[in-house]
Amino acid sequence: MNAGIVNVGIIGFGTVGSGTAKILIENAVLIRRRTGADVRLKRIADLDVTRDRGIKLAPGVLVPDANAVLNDPEIGVVVELMGGIHPALEFIKSALKNGKHVVTANKQLLAEKGAEIFALAREKNRVVAFEAAVAGGIPIIKVLRESLSCNNILSIHGIINGTSNYILTKMTREGMSFQDALKEAQRLGYAEANPAFDIEGVDTAHKLTLLASLAFGIPLSFDRVYKEGITRITAEDILYASELGYKIKLLAVTKVVDGGIELRVHPTMIPEDFLIARVDGVLNAVMVTGDYVGETMYYGRGAGDMPTGSAVVSDIIDIATGRQTAGSCGIAAPDGEKFAIRDMKDVVSMYYFRFSAIDKPGVLSRISGVLGSHNISISAVIQKERREGEAVPVVVLTHKAREEDVVEAVGEIDKLNVVSENTRFIRVEGKE
Amino acid sequence: MNAGIVNVGIIGFGTVGSGTAKILIENAVLIRRRTGADVRLKRIADLDVTRDRGIKLAPGVLVPDANAVLNDPEIGVVVELMGGIHPALEFIKSALKNGKHVVTANKQLLAEKGAEIFALAREKNRVVAFEAAVAGGIPIIKVLRESLSCNNILSIHGIINGTSNYILTKMTREGMSFQDALKEAQRLGYAEANPAFDIEGVDTAHKLTLLASLAFGIPLSFDRVYKEGITRITAEDILYASELGYKIKLLAVTKVVDGGIELRVHPTMIPEDFLIARVDGVLNAVMVTGDYVGETMYYGRGAGDMPTGSAVVSDIIDIATGRQTAGSCGIAAPDGEKFAIRDMKDVVSMYYFRFSAIDKPGVLSRISGVLGSHNISISAVIQKERREGEAVPVVVLTHKAREEDVVEAVGEIDKLNVVSENTRFIRVEGKE
Repeated sequence: MNAGIVNVGIIGFGTVGSGTAKILIENAVLIRRRTGADVRLKRIADLDVTRDRGIKLAPGVLVPDANAVLNDPEIGVVVELMGGIHPALEFIKSALKNGKHVVTANKQLLAEKGAEIFALAREKNRVVAFEAAVAGGIPIIKVLRESLSCNNILSIHGIINGTSNYILTKMTREGMSFQDALKEAQRLGYAEANPAFDIEGVDTAHKLTLLASLAFGIPLSFDRVYKEGITRITAEDILYASELGYKIKLLAVTKVVDGGIELRVHPTMIPEDFLIARVDGVLNAVMVTGDYVGETMYYGRGAGDMPTGSAVVSDIIDIATGRQTAGSCGIAAPDGEKFAIRDMKDVVSMYYFRFSAIDKPGVLSRISGVLGSHNISISAVIQKERREGEAVPVVVLTHKAREEDVVEAVGEIDKLNVVSENTRFIRVEGKE
Repeated sequence: MNAGIVNVGIIGFGTVGSGTAKILIENAVLIRRRTGADVRLKRIADLDVTRDRGIKLAPGVLVPDANAVLNDPEIGVVVELMGGIHPALEFIKSALKNGKHVVTANKQLLAEKGAEIFALAREKNRVVAFEAAVAGGIPIIKVLRESLSCNNILSIHGIINGTSNYILTKMTREGMSFQDALKEAQRLGYAEANPAFDIEGVDTAHKLTLLASLAFGIPLSFDRVYKEGITRITAEDILYASELGYKIKLLAVTKVVDGGIELRVHPTMIPEDFLIARVDGVLNAVMVTGDYVGETMYYGRGAGDMPTGSAVVSDIIDIATGRQTAGSCGIAAPDGEKFAIRDMKDVVSMYYFRFSAIDKPGVLSRISGVLGSHNISISAVIQKERREGEAVPVVVLTHKAREEDVVEAVGEIDKLNVVSENTRFIRVEGKE
């Protein structure tokens, strides 16, 4: 396909669809001059053919029927930007069966149904490209698949959900409650009316699933990702974290430990002098550590019409110039490498605990006694106001401990008659 | 060349040569499984065939004569890792003439003689790949050439000389003098016995030359880069910068201003809450702003055997898999785009001045009078100790001003009888 004409059809004319169309129209000449690829936007399918997206299209380009894209023999690349599982899955399969390459930003679909899609792509000898599915404009897929391909990847830590990061940043900077920060994010269009996927860690887990498969050659393993969102983080936790020198971020973590792979998404305390702790607002960043390259980080806008559109178009160009070829997606087949995925209970981490203690003499000793009996040793304690008989927060930072021990210890502590509410804990990354 | 056997010959078995050889030997299986490329290290040429680099080579692999690499018909990719202009230039030209692809980490050679090399590569239809030439393990070449290729690049700001960044970090954190920090860097192997290229901004300018050509399609323009190193930065300047909320970094800057391109390397004050201001020690980072993708940043180790080796091997894999093809280097031909390169005198920036004033009444008024007469307005002043009749530092931060005006104003001020030493100034990036 090198240097020929490539006709592109887009399915889904929403935010990312509009950004992609705009780039293809505005920068066709630039793209041709730089890459030799003559990329032409031939058709866009969307049920809504009337809304003004501020983009001037020739008559007949925007149509309501996806089949006008899927069945057009002149279209070589189908760009799926509608999101969700159905009918995006059916459209992508239809495109592959019709011999078309596919570009998609649909992390949910790939994370949950990717095995089926990539198997069909291999069978049909077609590309399924997905740079835009993780971290918007940040080229993390290409970095993992190409730039770092001679490295054994040791770990990935990502802030890859802009909504959650915006909410946590608001809570940190302005002392807002979670609910108020969420409302603010919704008002600004950073959070959807139903924000569950973002704030419950599901969106982050979708993206982590793709990154881990690329990094470690494991099959897509969305069901095996531990998922915990930010809904229970309080302004109080953020204050205590700050006092201890940490920021709280929703982090996607995957790493090799004892020959197995950890896959987890949860609020995480990160030392505030770590570079990734400085990534605020809707910005995203992915830290990748390889055995040769060492620690690297990639930072930018993880969402939005133009940054995500930029990533979509980079995939189209890679297909048009032959840089991405069938089978080069990097996602492992289901019979791929046999790294075991580690259970959450075996994760070893430092922990932050916030106990709601009835302030009586000996409370701390009883709590620390339970912790000690589960091999959890304390590195720092904050206990401030002392109002005898009332519940007061006791904050404890631990040395490295095992998740299973932590869960058991918390279960025991929450049954103590000197503890009035369920204990909250947050995992802590970084220095020990 | 897709999926076939690729025989590699390395010229130069120093730091990066050893790292590259190690990766190719250790990870041949990983590379083949991930990319389909069967990359074999066939020969290494170095005058020193006796020193132990800690790498076990089969007999006959290490030879003293570069011709054993250049003239071997089985070798498809020649990796030039000796550095310097001669004989690296002759070796690369010989390799291209013999029909071999070339991978090099030699920024000096490409920045100064690249036009000749890339012209020959085009003529011979061969690749000259150079990911390792800028920012070591950070894949900034691929990002600019591929990932962001649909963007009009607006600006690049880079910390791309680890030696200078290490020295400035030491001066900042420990209040060291420039000379002491340089000695420490030499002791640790971060600075060469002759550190001129690093601390005078020449190495940074070599790298900036390559980045600007990729970003803006301009011919390689090393001679047009404004170069100012860090040798005149004092611990005092760093203290004042800190007091004003800034860090001092040796920054490579290229951006589009009024349809022209700025190309400049100089110590720069950056607001300390900017992410790039947090990039310390020998670490590198490159911020790239594109019209669609917005602000992005890439961070990692800019030097060292393994990180740079990782970048070299990524180029070898790209050639072996056909992802990099002749003519795709992205460096403009000398008859490329006609962006004008802007003169340094037309640069508009904020400025930090440190005047050595004889502390008499009215000194500040005379200095600010001269500044005002050159359209330079003051945003902050620090004047601390007052010992009448002695020289005291007067520190001034300005609003945006034109370099030409600044140079003229400083010339006038340095002639005032109330000023005892030449005025120092540092350009300031960021918020106004």
